[in-house]
Amino acid sequence: MYGLIGKMMATPGQRDALMTILLEGVSGMPGCLSYIVAKDPHDANALWITEAWDSQASHAASLDLPSVKAAIVKGRPPIAGFGERFETVPVGGHGLIHSHKS
Amino acid sequence: MYGLIGKMMATPGQRDALMTILLEGVSGMPGCLSYIVAKDPHDANALWITEAWDSQASHAASLDLPSVKAAIVKGRPPIAGFGERFETVPVGGHGLIHSHKS
Repeated sequence: MYGLIGKMMATPGQRDALMTILLEGVSGMPGCLSYIVAKDPHDANALWITEAWDSQASHAASLDLPSVKAAIVKGRPPIAGFGERFETVPVGGHGLIHSHKS
Repeated sequence: MYGLIGKMMATPGQRDALMTILLEGVSGMPGCLSYIVAKDPHDANALWITEAWDSQASHAASLDLPSVKAAIVKGRPPIAGFGERFETVPVGGHGLIHSHKS
């Protein structure tokens, strides 16, 4: 498995809009086992994305999906920058669910 | 929702044992929507735990579950310390699944 933990900074006042774009763009990504978008409770412009994939290749391939490409284009204006970023190797737990296009 | 992202350091050579204890102890926690244990690919003693709960109260209550108390006791020797810790407020995504005792 392949995982990512990352902090993203929205431009002021645009965090909710950015979260909506992220959540719309990422449904049904092949090989995606978990993709959770969260607010930072201590920074009104920051959000956290935690991801788990069946492989690093699936994550890389997701960047070519039309839905993800569209989200990247729509998401660029409200993104002010990036914070911490950690790669992980998930080994198990609760909430790892295969996602498939319907 | 309530989320946690945290890094945990195992004593040398004990990461796999610690992960096993964590994964055994955390099944079926009421209000737990996601609990994923991952290795740090850059540090052989480090692991990451990412959690999502329906509420902070559910997370707090989980610490009183017998299974979690047992895991805390078993997990203490192989834990060398803690690294980064971030609280979050999950808003949505893929892989948020209610867990119930069977």
